[in-house]
Amino acid sequence: MNTTKIKAFGTQAAENDLELLTIERREVQAKDIEIDIYYCGVCHSDLHTARNDWGGTVYPAVPGHEIVGKILKVGNEVSTFKVGDLVAVGCMVDSCRTCNSCEQDLEQFCENGFTGTYNGKDKYFEDTRTFGGYAESVIVDEHFVLRLPENLDMAAAAPLLCAGITTWSPLKHWNVTENSKVAVVGLGGLGHMAIKLAKGLGAEVTLFSRTPGKTEDAKALGTDHVIISTDEDQMKSVLNKFDLIIDTVPYEHDINPYMNTLTVNGTLVLVGFIGDFESAVSTKPMIYKRRSVAGSLIGGIKETQEMLDFCGEKNIVSDIEIIKMQDINEAYERMLKSDVKYRFVIDMKSLKD
Amino acid sequence: MNTTKIKAFGTQAAENDLELLTIERREVQAKDIEIDIYYCGVCHSDLHTARNDWGGTVYPAVPGHEIVGKILKVGNEVSTFKVGDLVAVGCMVDSCRTCNSCEQDLEQFCENGFTGTYNGKDKYFEDTRTFGGYAESVIVDEHFVLRLPENLDMAAAAPLLCAGITTWSPLKHWNVTENSKVAVVGLGGLGHMAIKLAKGLGAEVTLFSRTPGKTEDAKALGTDHVIISTDEDQMKSVLNKFDLIIDTVPYEHDINPYMNTLTVNGTLVLVGFIGDFESAVSTKPMIYKRRSVAGSLIGGIKETQEMLDFCGEKNIVSDIEIIKMQDINEAYERMLKSDVKYRFVIDMKSLKD
Repeated sequence: MNTTKIKAFGTQAAENDLELLTIERREVQAKDIEIDIYYCGVCHSDLHTARNDWGGTVYPAVPGHEIVGKILKVGNEVSTFKVGDLVAVGCMVDSCRTCNSCEQDLEQFCENGFTGTYNGKDKYFEDTRTFGGYAESVIVDEHFVLRLPENLDMAAAAPLLCAGITTWSPLKHWNVTENSKVAVVGLGGLGHMAIKLAKGLGAEVTLFSRTPGKTEDAKALGTDHVIISTDEDQMKSVLNKFDLIIDTVPYEHDINPYMNTLTVNGTLVLVGFIGDFESAVSTKPMIYKRRSVAGSLIGGIKETQEMLDFCGEKNIVSDIEIIKMQDINEAYERMLKSDVKYRFVIDMKSLKD
Repeated sequence: MNTTKIKAFGTQAAENDLELLTIERREVQAKDIEIDIYYCGVCHSDLHTARNDWGGTVYPAVPGHEIVGKILKVGNEVSTFKVGDLVAVGCMVDSCRTCNSCEQDLEQFCENGFTGTYNGKDKYFEDTRTFGGYAESVIVDEHFVLRLPENLDMAAAAPLLCAGITTWSPLKHWNVTENSKVAVVGLGGLGHMAIKLAKGLGAEVTLFSRTPGKTEDAKALGTDHVIISTDEDQMKSVLNKFDLIIDTVPYEHDINPYMNTLTVNGTLVLVGFIGDFESAVSTKPMIYKRRSVAGSLIGGIKETQEMLDFCGEKNIVSDIEIIKMQDINEAYERMLKSDVKYRFVIDMKSLKD
């Protein structure tokens, strides 16, 4: 297969900084779309993959799965998009399209494994993995290309493709409406999107925070109430209150106090912590009020488009800090200290500098 | 309030055996029904309460919440039952009737706490707790009295009132139908009812067992498949298969291997283990397939009547071993060794011996 060499930013080893690389993209196939990348959001997964924190990273690795840009070229069987369209790509660039999950528009649960936008098994090249959005351009099958509403700020829309859909999907799956009471645990990239999207759906939204320091920020995002989770009286005041809790905390933590704030039939859905609870998950809050603990993973392509359309209607985007591609290593260090409100987005023009 | 003295079996202290006691029952109030107890099932909760395993037992304690019998007397405002009717009483004898949960026929989740059939806070007597079904008779508000289908074997129907409804409620709440694949963990009082009821609903039913020894018994109950949970190949053969798992195991255990056998959106519902998972609950099976861990507690009164009516139609009862009241202490010891197929039921006539 013919390929084109392009500029990208990535790493050759877990212990290296990210640096300028030359990578190859396949030529545009019949159903492919070539996208000129304008902006790419910076997700915690990017850092974990670059540093092989989860194992399984194949190098060179080029992260980035919150991609927005403009179409440069379309394959001859592409019918729904044309050159010049504003588009976006999230965490997936392919899946089997034939399994039960794919047929139900749940490509994120593809029984044969979806192809991740980066470090995914590449069906076109046996020796490398897919390269993500820290690059000049990307070539993606049209099924996995989303239409970006024209009214949205492009840079601030980029994080919708991962942080947005990751919190939108559980809000929709668990039927959040204007009659719902939703709580959010954690105020980072995911948490601040959960607040904006739940408010967009008309829900009453509460943030659980460990310290009072985040109250003003949370209110500015639209949060109705802030509960300091270390304050027993405040926690008691919200017993049996929430229909849904979106728990975005990315490390192990005690979920039992939150469980008791769910109403009968309520669900705490984990979207941040991928690992083992080494202690203390009690079955009592579950059994005594038929509550659930669940997990959720990004969202399907159809659902992602619905989320983008909803954000277009409501003019919802992420709060971001724009950086240059060359500042990515410093951004990773700041991200590890939660020193960002609330998402870094790379201006990909800087790659041409 | 006038009271009547009756014979019962109970205990004066955690370390005592159960023995013959004299207890007092209130006189029949306007909406009350007096029931001549024919049979009473023996639940693990009876033993735990008698021995104060959960704390909170007030002595004397008279267990028993799987009660069937015949109406002796009705209060002057009782309209739906008459003397001589076959009836049943389960785990609850009262609730506030006005909270959100009660208004939704979810008395088991009464916001003000339901009144347990035994060791429940008695609104008629400040100094004692409610006395259960190890007694000649019981007096219960008509709202908490169930109609027992005439075609069912009375003794074998008794365990439907706790073991039956405890497994029926999650089967119905999670919409089990003839298209469902259900798995059951644990083959005891609850497990064997879960199998019978899921089969009654037309589902394909699998038992998870740690040893091959239970295969024949499980098949005799109607189980379609038995999977030996310690056999890795067998566990792999059921990955992503089950819509619902009813986990009846009453002690801490590793749920992660079972979680991976749930389909996308599947739920493992805990009905047996009330306590803390001290280790090893992984969020990965939840996040990667949007699976849930939930709890469920008995069922509401309306739902219990629906379960009894269903059992009447399908002629579903428990597999039991009938004992005399005087044999209860030995039965408790055998129950602790799981030496019963699958439920002891006390013939309450023996209390008159």
